[in-house]
Amino acid sequence: MIKVGFIGLGTMGLPMAANLLRKGYPVTVYNRTPGKAGELTELGAATAATPAEVTRDVELVITMISNDDAIREVYYGENGILGAIKPGTIVIDSSTISPQLAKQLAADTSAKQADFLDAPVTGSKPAAESGTLVFMIGGDEAVLNKIKEPLHAMGRSIIYMGPSGSGATAKLAHNTIVGINIAALVEGLAIASSGGIDPSAFLELVNSGGAASKMAELKTPKLLARDYSVQFSLELMLKDLRLSSVLSDGLKTPTPMLETAKGLFQMGESKGLGALDVSALGQCYEEWIGKQLSDRKE
Amino acid sequence: MIKVGFIGLGTMGLPMAANLLRKGYPVTVYNRTPGKAGELTELGAATAATPAEVTRDVELVITMISNDDAIREVYYGENGILGAIKPGTIVIDSSTISPQLAKQLAADTSAKQADFLDAPVTGSKPAAESGTLVFMIGGDEAVLNKIKEPLHAMGRSIIYMGPSGSGATAKLAHNTIVGINIAALVEGLAIASSGGIDPSAFLELVNSGGAASKMAELKTPKLLARDYSVQFSLELMLKDLRLSSVLSDGLKTPTPMLETAKGLFQMGESKGLGALDVSALGQCYEEWIGKQLSDRKE
Repeated sequence: MIKVGFIGLGTMGLPMAANLLRKGYPVTVYNRTPGKAGELTELGAATAATPAEVTRDVELVITMISNDDAIREVYYGENGILGAIKPGTIVIDSSTISPQLAKQLAADTSAKQADFLDAPVTGSKPAAESGTLVFMIGGDEAVLNKIKEPLHAMGRSIIYMGPSGSGATAKLAHNTIVGINIAALVEGLAIASSGGIDPSAFLELVNSGGAASKMAELKTPKLLARDYSVQFSLELMLKDLRLSSVLSDGLKTPTPMLETAKGLFQMGESKGLGALDVSALGQCYEEWIGKQLSDRKE
Repeated sequence: MIKVGFIGLGTMGLPMAANLLRKGYPVTVYNRTPGKAGELTELGAATAATPAEVTRDVELVITMISNDDAIREVYYGENGILGAIKPGTIVIDSSTISPQLAKQLAADTSAKQADFLDAPVTGSKPAAESGTLVFMIGGDEAVLNKIKEPLHAMGRSIIYMGPSGSGATAKLAHNTIVGINIAALVEGLAIASSGGIDPSAFLELVNSGGAASKMAELKTPKLLARDYSVQFSLELMLKDLRLSSVLSDGLKTPTPMLETAKGLFQMGESKGLGALDVSALGQCYEEWIGKQLSDRKE
């Protein structure tokens, strides 16, 4: 089986690496914050001290890192991937990054006679844990065909999107819809609650009617319980909307819905809700209407 | 079986009345535009010349009328429902109207010792045809319990929302989410297309990922085929967003997403797309980005 290096053991990376190990792949892991690899070494993971050390040893490197600066450090830093990479190695990044950065990583990897694919995923923590992520791929399709098996250890579906950067573009456009759908759900619930409708009855309607969405399904129990434990954090949602806004602006594509949603999540961030689940946006509306979105009103 | 009068034989009303007839209810129908009752008389419907004539003869009157002025005429006009209604008659309105008008109709019906429920529905033409609408009810729950059987002839689910006007409020809040979700879908598709992603691949991603929604499911084939035949017209969507905007404003509930979506559908209306399906909003984005949303880009 192909030897895999995994860099970035956060909310998403940790369960993704665990799924590779459970399927029998030899995996070497690295995380900036040490101590996160414990669960994985029990599953048989080797650990490395730097991204370079991970890269020397494997045929496929996967990075999953939420912070743009950390991505640059992992690829271009003193002990980074690109300083250590052997010809023929395949590198994929499953973070959400700008198409521009994806293209740059692809060009710089190609200069080392190695291959890079942008391979972001949709599906939050539960999907990472159950191995049911959806991968969207940008880059050379022939390279993708060499690594479909390990991707299927982590995801249920792999969709090829086009040349380098296309995975990143598709991810940002996709998450734009996610962010707007969440804002729609919370705003609709605020109107109903404000008008005296019981939130449970209203959300039952939403989930059985034309307003149904994956986000409504996932966030209904969280909104009703005011449970803002993280599936996908508000600050990461905002990061994606910011990247999408820059992308759309560069493409001269008007995105009034995106800009409005971004403004709302910025209000959430300014209220200190960034580290909570994205459904915590409900707290903004609760403050505006002076009512909880989870009380029974009758 | 309870004798039913049905007023308003449009896109929704016609198949709803047909389902009552197929389930064996005796139905008397009226439509402002004559000639629409043909299919129903074949199924056994009686016809009446005025709303008053419908009302005199039945125990339950259902109105399904898209235009606010026409609703006032049907209830308050010279040959309207309220001039002819007997004590004990139940009247329900399944149109989308303002909660204020619903409360007024309830009060004026009550003054005649009869009962009124606001009973709007979610589900467009296909759901009306298959009898799988969802009813949301405002008014006296004891009255609702008397007419659940005929409602189940037209719908798969009946959700009680609270006192008079609550059905109308829930419907407007629900359709606010629908309108925003459609705008989200089209805007996300525009970003992806503008960035060179194949629309089919992107919409496959949307429907299998976190961006999935009932609207994405219903509108994907229409967007890809540029088939704007009406499931739910852009002008009726806009009507609902306008009513929701007035409602929210009265409730002092900030609705930035709703206002932005309303602006987009107004642009669609100003382009002459009002009578087309709501998915025709895509044409606005196509003009802005200078690309069809249905072309293969690679």
